[in-house]
Amino acid sequence: MKLAQATIKDIARELNVSSSTVSRALKDYPGISDETKKRVKEMAEKLNYRPNAVALSLRKSKSFTIGVVIPEVVHFFFSTVISGIEEVAYKNGYNVILCQTNEKLEREISSVETMLSNQIDGLLVSYSKETTDFSHFIKLMEMELPIVFFDRTPNIENTVNVTVNDFNGGYQATKHLIDQGYRKILHLAGPSNLTISKKRKEGYLAALNEAGIPVDEKLIVECPIANEKESFESCVQLFKDADNRPDAIFAHHDIVAAGAMLAVKSLGLKIPEEVGVVGFSNWQFASMIDPPLTSVMQPGSKIGEKATQILLEMINNKVINPLNMEDLVLDTELLIRKSSLKNS
Amino acid sequence: MKLAQATIKDIARELNVSSSTVSRALKDYPGISDETKKRVKEMAEKLNYRPNAVALSLRKSKSFTIGVVIPEVVHFFFSTVISGIEEVAYKNGYNVILCQTNEKLEREISSVETMLSNQIDGLLVSYSKETTDFSHFIKLMEMELPIVFFDRTPNIENTVNVTVNDFNGGYQATKHLIDQGYRKILHLAGPSNLTISKKRKEGYLAALNEAGIPVDEKLIVECPIANEKESFESCVQLFKDADNRPDAIFAHHDIVAAGAMLAVKSLGLKIPEEVGVVGFSNWQFASMIDPPLTSVMQPGSKIGEKATQILLEMINNKVINPLNMEDLVLDTELLIRKSSLKNS
Repeated sequence: MKLAQATIKDIARELNVSSSTVSRALKDYPGISDETKKRVKEMAEKLNYRPNAVALSLRKSKSFTIGVVIPEVVHFFFSTVISGIEEVAYKNGYNVILCQTNEKLEREISSVETMLSNQIDGLLVSYSKETTDFSHFIKLMEMELPIVFFDRTPNIENTVNVTVNDFNGGYQATKHLIDQGYRKILHLAGPSNLTISKKRKEGYLAALNEAGIPVDEKLIVECPIANEKESFESCVQLFKDADNRPDAIFAHHDIVAAGAMLAVKSLGLKIPEEVGVVGFSNWQFASMIDPPLTSVMQPGSKIGEKATQILLEMINNKVINPLNMEDLVLDTELLIRKSSLKNS
Repeated sequence: MKLAQATIKDIARELNVSSSTVSRALKDYPGISDETKKRVKEMAEKLNYRPNAVALSLRKSKSFTIGVVIPEVVHFFFSTVISGIEEVAYKNGYNVILCQTNEKLEREISSVETMLSNQIDGLLVSYSKETTDFSHFIKLMEMELPIVFFDRTPNIENTVNVTVNDFNGGYQATKHLIDQGYRKILHLAGPSNLTISKKRKEGYLAALNEAGIPVDEKLIVECPIANEKESFESCVQLFKDADNRPDAIFAHHDIVAAGAMLAVKSLGLKIPEEVGVVGFSNWQFASMIDPPLTSVMQPGSKIGEKATQILLEMINNKVINPLNMEDLVLDTELLIRKSSLKNS
């Protein structure tokens, strides 16, 4: 055994774990059990492992630039995340470069390559809807590039993820509608392949169950495109039958809610008296429409700040400790406005 | 005279023009008169000028990456420009990296440095509200980095600029209100230090003058912050006096218009029957509010496409010809919705 040249791969092979697990364990990253960290460090000592000199020197010639890969800048939520990222980055002397994937895997892969050739010190990622193969990220992690994922959690072991509690957001929205006296609550759900859609719907179901309201499958309508035209058309159909119509709407996000409101109003129904409406994401326009829209606020700026703080700690090889992973699931907040206030 | 080593600076000195003029004249860029081009080329020949070998070799090792410096991604207009940029860039095998300045000069300077150290092939810029000294851009132009400015035209000679016809947008909006029978048209103007604010206001004044409506200075109200809270508060004051209130609003942009609409409605006034409203920029929410908002659409995507096409031609040293500079001022389009339709 070439003791003097043991690499991370040697340690990984000996322990039958991935290289990225070894790398992260050696750095005390979160998401790795103490037991694994102990085994990795012992094996590193046994094999006389020394950190790769090239990697270290690369690390020393820092660019003070952070790369951010996001699906769409036009989505209000992501623009608030970017603000939070920049806030922390600039305060610490880092610049930020953004690449937008437009929800396309191909663009994501080429964005990641661009970022890498630009010698970024670390990467913040919210991957595209198309991404199911994460090998372009795994490759970077094996090169020991610090990466933090936000909003969307990838199917890779031992990643550091900063997310929103979408389940609780859906629960808060639905419970509020129930508390206001609404009973036939329509859920305009998001694309079913996204985890956030599933979590919001689970929150909706949990609130109904808790209140003893039976779930009516006809009241769960998926909006795969999730724009205002689609929800307008769905709602015109759903609300035109006076005998059998819902009395409230919990929408996957505010654009979907806005389309639903236009439909409900076009049928002459009053919001919130006859139909209560709650959206999600608290887009900029939510307070400007008529009536102002109750919405679940995601702490976009906080997500950006938190993800960047952790990334900078990783870049600077700081021991991230004690970091409870639960801290990285940030809470939503229900902003109550007129659209859902039946009882006021 | 060192004939064999004449540089662009030598030519510039001999002709008493700037280096960037010489550089651009040699490449047949737009914005340089034929007369200047001729003088520069003759002097280059006389001095035995040869393009800088280092610059050429830098040019040959292309990164196929375009840098974009913008004030704010959250502004809907800029997000549409980015879409247009990416459309053309990806089609031509280029990646796009973005830096957001948040309207701060300091961030702009450091963004430009980051872009440069990342070896971009060219730069698209909409500079910050704070920028009055353009030396960080002039430096890049002297290094022969291709740059195209969009939306905001800098105070530098011989730049290539792609802009919107804001004057005509303001004119279209105001003329439409006059055609609908409104006479006391309030202009909620943008920050007075921005050229776009001035142009929109000039368009407003031109339409009034053409219709023979005397200008009432009390009906021109600046909104320096240009958010919905500010315009709400201004309009509550301006509309509460029933005897003397305006009968229409032309707002600097849709957020300002939305705040004004909330104020007007809070006073019990009907839109469009008692007050007509027109916004600017056609934000995503304009069609979703009640009543849907008439707005001047800026061709954001087209601006991005056009600016990128020209930048790629500059990067590839193509002769840009014949390029009428007037083509680079793109037309707005009035999207008429219910908020301004008194006569329907």
